[in-house]
Amino acid sequence: MAQNKAEMTNKFRTYVRKMADYKEAVAVLSWDVMTCAPVRGKEQRAEVIGMLSTELFKLGIAPEMGEMLDNLSDTDTYEALDPVTQAMVRELKKEYDKNKSIPADLFQAYTVLTAKAQVIWEEAKRNNDFVAFQPYLEQIIDHLNQFIDIWGYEGHRYNTLLDRYEPGVTVEMIDPLFADLRKKSVELLERIQANGKPSDTSFLRKHYPAQAQREFSKFVLQKIGYDFTAGRLDESAHPFSTGLNLGDVRITTKIYEHDLQMALYSSIHEVGHAIYEQNIAPELAGTLLWEGASMGIHESQSRFWENIIGRSEAFWSCFYSEAAAMFPGPFAGVSVNAVYRAVNQVQPSLIRIEADELTYNLHIMLRYELEKALITGDLRVADLPGAWAEKMSDYLGITPPNDAQGVLQDVHWSGGDFGYFPTYSLGNIYAAQLEAALSRDIPDYREAVRQGEFGIITRWMKEKVHRHGKMLLPAKIIREATGEGINATYLIAYLEKKYTDVYELA
Amino acid sequence: MAQNKAEMTNKFRTYVRKMADYKEAVAVLSWDVMTCAPVRGKEQRAEVIGMLSTELFKLGIAPEMGEMLDNLSDTDTYEALDPVTQAMVRELKKEYDKNKSIPADLFQAYTVLTAKAQVIWEEAKRNNDFVAFQPYLEQIIDHLNQFIDIWGYEGHRYNTLLDRYEPGVTVEMIDPLFADLRKKSVELLERIQANGKPSDTSFLRKHYPAQAQREFSKFVLQKIGYDFTAGRLDESAHPFSTGLNLGDVRITTKIYEHDLQMALYSSIHEVGHAIYEQNIAPELAGTLLWEGASMGIHESQSRFWENIIGRSEAFWSCFYSEAAAMFPGPFAGVSVNAVYRAVNQVQPSLIRIEADELTYNLHIMLRYELEKALITGDLRVADLPGAWAEKMSDYLGITPPNDAQGVLQDVHWSGGDFGYFPTYSLGNIYAAQLEAALSRDIPDYREAVRQGEFGIITRWMKEKVHRHGKMLLPAKIIREATGEGINATYLIAYLEKKYTDVYELA
Repeated sequence: MAQNKAEMTNKFRTYVRKMADYKEAVAVLSWDVMTCAPVRGKEQRAEVIGMLSTELFKLGIAPEMGEMLDNLSDTDTYEALDPVTQAMVRELKKEYDKNKSIPADLFQAYTVLTAKAQVIWEEAKRNNDFVAFQPYLEQIIDHLNQFIDIWGYEGHRYNTLLDRYEPGVTVEMIDPLFADLRKKSVELLERIQANGKPSDTSFLRKHYPAQAQREFSKFVLQKIGYDFTAGRLDESAHPFSTGLNLGDVRITTKIYEHDLQMALYSSIHEVGHAIYEQNIAPELAGTLLWEGASMGIHESQSRFWENIIGRSEAFWSCFYSEAAAMFPGPFAGVSVNAVYRAVNQVQPSLIRIEADELTYNLHIMLRYELEKALITGDLRVADLPGAWAEKMSDYLGITPPNDAQGVLQDVHWSGGDFGYFPTYSLGNIYAAQLEAALSRDIPDYREAVRQGEFGIITRWMKEKVHRHGKMLLPAKIIREATGEGINATYLIAYLEKKYTDVYELA
Repeated sequence: MAQNKAEMTNKFRTYVRKMADYKEAVAVLSWDVMTCAPVRGKEQRAEVIGMLSTELFKLGIAPEMGEMLDNLSDTDTYEALDPVTQAMVRELKKEYDKNKSIPADLFQAYTVLTAKAQVIWEEAKRNNDFVAFQPYLEQIIDHLNQFIDIWGYEGHRYNTLLDRYEPGVTVEMIDPLFADLRKKSVELLERIQANGKPSDTSFLRKHYPAQAQREFSKFVLQKIGYDFTAGRLDESAHPFSTGLNLGDVRITTKIYEHDLQMALYSSIHEVGHAIYEQNIAPELAGTLLWEGASMGIHESQSRFWENIIGRSEAFWSCFYSEAAAMFPGPFAGVSVNAVYRAVNQVQPSLIRIEADELTYNLHIMLRYELEKALITGDLRVADLPGAWAEKMSDYLGITPPNDAQGVLQDVHWSGGDFGYFPTYSLGNIYAAQLEAALSRDIPDYREAVRQGEFGIITRWMKEKVHRHGKMLLPAKIIREATGEGINATYLIAYLEKKYTDVYELA
């Protein structure tokens, strides 16, 4: 019997390892398309990616998989499994049940719909034509509601969608957090606009040669703790991070020669994701648990490095002399403190991905509230542009001149990714909670940043967050790291402190 | 019934398309390992490549494949198929029969043996220790002989091995060609060494900055006809070309800053392979016929561009001013004719891959003769180093000081690739035949080279060679392009003419 269990476990783990290998192949091919592939080869490459993704999906819902999961989920058997295999069974069974419960023709129709919708969305955005996209969005919402009915839900219908990206987190948990954060953010923004002392940011838009930017980013990333023997930095239209395997976690950036911040902060953002994956426990490789706990926890790492560390005065104390040596023209006569202030300027704007640290969350909440209302039917798709404009005005005091710069700006909805947006703000909330815990555990960590001793931080993050991979739920990681549940007050306090300082508010 | 046949064909072609997709995935992952992947990610990447290769192999020998091939090979059905599907059935049935006929445990043992042998060979080469490699080579030869017995053979036993790389070509065809080429090459080498007027090559080893070399190679490749919207040039330890798909055929090169020839001629060599694949008929994409007709035909294209064109005076007339502008120091006071002579100097040497155009074939014949003798048992592995030294002395007048620079220099034998070497010289023979036919069809083609109008050549090659992909056997391609069978006299005449000119022989 024990023999039998060991065999069963081995068979299951070998099977999952093969799935992980397929996943890696898809990730390598996708990286290649984004960074390297010549334009004429991309269409056929997409076919290969599609074929391999289908094979991976089929492995996940194969009868053989169902049988293994049934056997391993049997209470006695499950209790006797090692913790890693238990987590694998838990995660794969959840996926299996979800995917098997959807009728094949419905799933197929949805796949075709979202593929088509993404093409239509691109055109609609280019042509500023919401009406062209509207029927697709309506159908996507209709499909998602069918899925919610099949999968079931507790509390709010939207919870089932949220769970795909942030397992265990619910509307009931988020709503009060977001309400508080939104109120405080809007107030803070109003104080900045009324009484803040703006800084000179003109040096940020001087000429920064591409090659020097590349080298400076590499210098910073290496110093922070990114292992270049297990990764690489390239350039792509949209910066991203991709964990191919334990020894190969790559990032990309994007360089504007008249903008210091684009390449630097997108590199630091992506490297936050990458350092996370480089530090997942090696025994999780090939188990499908070798990934982040959730989108929100992943984002907490990128935002922590990008904003909390990367936009701190301590960070610029550390890197100022290197930056001044590499960009002598733009940095001439600019002090460390002036850099710190410049990279923390706030300006309400239309486009989420260009937003500053304070207003970013307002963009997210707007989307989150609209998504919930679309799913429940409280908001009709036809009324979406109006609702968008109203909330933009309420939260940010500006309204988009057209839908391309409004409701059509993001790709997410065309792919059916409802429930994804809130994880961005959850990432900011988690990041501030983690920073508070870090500064309790290591009170002088800012001095370490000033000295360039980042190891003290990455070791702490590795211990508290990274090593767990997908073994633990996000709320559990936060509780174990910080001693409490998800809590937005740390982010609010952090923002108030930073902007009081930067804008010399009373 | 007609309906049935169409369905059968569609099913077969969809199945094969999936195989082609797997092949593309393996090729992309392999390219990535050779050019991009960080060192710590390579081992796990090899597992993914192995998994996908196994899936591809399994598709090729699956019962479903056997059944489709049986049905489609039925004479009436076969005759009614379109020519592309016929060729697919022919090629895939040949592979299927070969692979199915080998007992699974024998095949598995051979796979393990060659994987191990390649590791042992690397160590043996590093340690100059032939004895360590000897038992592995003996076992590989033993396995190959078992395969030959299973697959059968006509004429010489070696023909079965040769057929894997150069279908339809036999020892009986090659032996007389090679005997003549060897005799004439040795005589020509002796004349050069006795009476040739050597040229100054010192400028070739001056400083050529890497970035300028990259740009010069790109300039040349683009001019020759390589489509960079369907390919790219990177760097790797060993230059190679890889056809990923119709719109994505990549090459790599290797740059030495004190050697003009390494990067330039390896780029041109590889681009010969790449232009071949970029010009295969698009309707062969996804059929597994979207590849070269044979290793020899492939090599004819790389050698044609590298040596016949790239080392011609017309080529240097075309590119001299660009080279002189990019490398003003080294090219100062060096004439077009001096460059032409310098890149055509002959020097017997120990290492095949460093050999000049004349002595290269002697390295190949030596290996070909030893391979045949090893397979028939006329030569024992233990006696190989001695036999190697003897032939080196006979053909090239030099002997290796150790086995690392002798019998252990090439990777091929450790991977079981007996039958591969002769295709390199067949490539040279084909290339010279094609050049002769080209100059009959387009007598002033050298003037076009001088003017940089390479399209006239690539269009001719596309018509005669490239577009056919793997539809035709190599000998048929040569016959249709040149009007005769495989014939070494063109290569001999070409070499005699070139070296009489370069060395001012009487």
